[in-house]
Amino acid sequence: MQRIAINPDQIKDKLITLTSEQQHYLYRVLRLQKGDKFIAMDGMGKWWLSQLDNTDALILHQLTVETELPISVTLMVALPKGNGFENIVRCCTELGVACIAPVISDRTLLKPSSQKLERWKRIATEAAEQSERAKVPEILAPIAFNQSIVSFTNFEKYICVARGDSPHLLHCLQNQPDIINNSHNKSVVIATGAEGGWTEKEIEIALQNGFKPVSLGRRILRAVTAPIVVMSLISGISEV
Amino acid sequence: MQRIAINPDQIKDKLITLTSEQQHYLYRVLRLQKGDKFIAMDGMGKWWLSQLDNTDALILHQLTVETELPISVTLMVALPKGNGFENIVRCCTELGVACIAPVISDRTLLKPSSQKLERWKRIATEAAEQSERAKVPEILAPIAFNQSIVSFTNFEKYICVARGDSPHLLHCLQNQPDIINNSHNKSVVIATGAEGGWTEKEIEIALQNGFKPVSLGRRILRAVTAPIVVMSLISGISEV
Repeated sequence: MQRIAINPDQIKDKLITLTSEQQHYLYRVLRLQKGDKFIAMDGMGKWWLSQLDNTDALILHQLTVETELPISVTLMVALPKGNGFENIVRCCTELGVACIAPVISDRTLLKPSSQKLERWKRIATEAAEQSERAKVPEILAPIAFNQSIVSFTNFEKYICVARGDSPHLLHCLQNQPDIINNSHNKSVVIATGAEGGWTEKEIEIALQNGFKPVSLGRRILRAVTAPIVVMSLISGISEV
Repeated sequence: MQRIAINPDQIKDKLITLTSEQQHYLYRVLRLQKGDKFIAMDGMGKWWLSQLDNTDALILHQLTVETELPISVTLMVALPKGNGFENIVRCCTELGVACIAPVISDRTLLKPSSQKLERWKRIATEAAEQSERAKVPEILAPIAFNQSIVSFTNFEKYICVARGDSPHLLHCLQNQPDIINNSHNKSVVIATGAEGGWTEKEIEIALQNGFKPVSLGRRILRAVTAPIVVMSLISGISEV
């Protein structure tokens, strides 16, 4: 069944007042008709089976969704060049990320324009709908690496480094069942670098701030691949 | 150090005769000069430290490479729409795939042109160089699903299905240490579907041919994301 994200403000009693954009999407793009059913999701974990009624939709009943990961994962991603970050947002949303924090590292070439954040949020919303997630991940505004790295308190923290002999992320996670089961109610943050990786100074600052260095395998991954690998491993290990 | 793929035919004694394309790449693109060193790789597991000498390169010595997975993994991928397959080739090469077999399934919209195969092979070669792999994965010509599905003998076979209650791929692999350690010298093939997934008939044919149904988690992944998740899990579990 088709899904669209709505704002909780749109609901009054059992009625959703649809925006003209949503009406266009439901009637024109999806070709639904009056009386057809669809799923309205508020992006914060609630889904409602709803029925189209002209410019409104009637809420029939709430649905149970179990597509969220048991742990809250934040990805701290050094912005890659080009449009690579869009693909990261799309894929990592599909894989259950809770929050993506783009950072500007020493090797970041891209200084994103202010409209980019809105676009990334739109991509996250679409990907959450398509992948049938209950929640839309939060996309933070890009800030400097030095600002972001000190902002995670009460998180289990990892930084992915290429080469060297750091333990594999999967190994670290498997040795932390309390984290994976979320029995300590602790979030996880994992940082991945831009093209060329982190500078030595950045790694040093991360270690000083409690980040543990981890590997994603023996090959050199592109900046756009590493975050997807991280989320594949976390979703795998927490949903097995 | 910079890497380029060469054809073993180009080597005579300790000398590599460079093609004009390779000369252009080394001198113009990478801006190397006579006497500079680079790594020549034959795409089949051998690397040589080499030194530029005009239109030739002198082989200094062979290098040991340990960036290949312990198991040989073939991905059978139903061709997705647009250029999505290019990204699959690139990412899965980075993650250690041995062979990619594109197939035309019932829900494949794309009928690839014959030039596409050459382009995919070029992408695999470039990605193998960039990710520092010893081997360039094989990319097969696209064939019909029904032809491909019967062609894997002596493989451990999995087919990824969305929804349903199949066990997670990671769970299946973790219960097969002999496969992961490659102590049986058995290859693995894993099939992922196109947009909309496999048809019921396709899944039935796969099961009849010894494929086990597996899940990649609770969310619905796009056709272009699923193969990357598969390779992330396999490389993770076999390199931990």
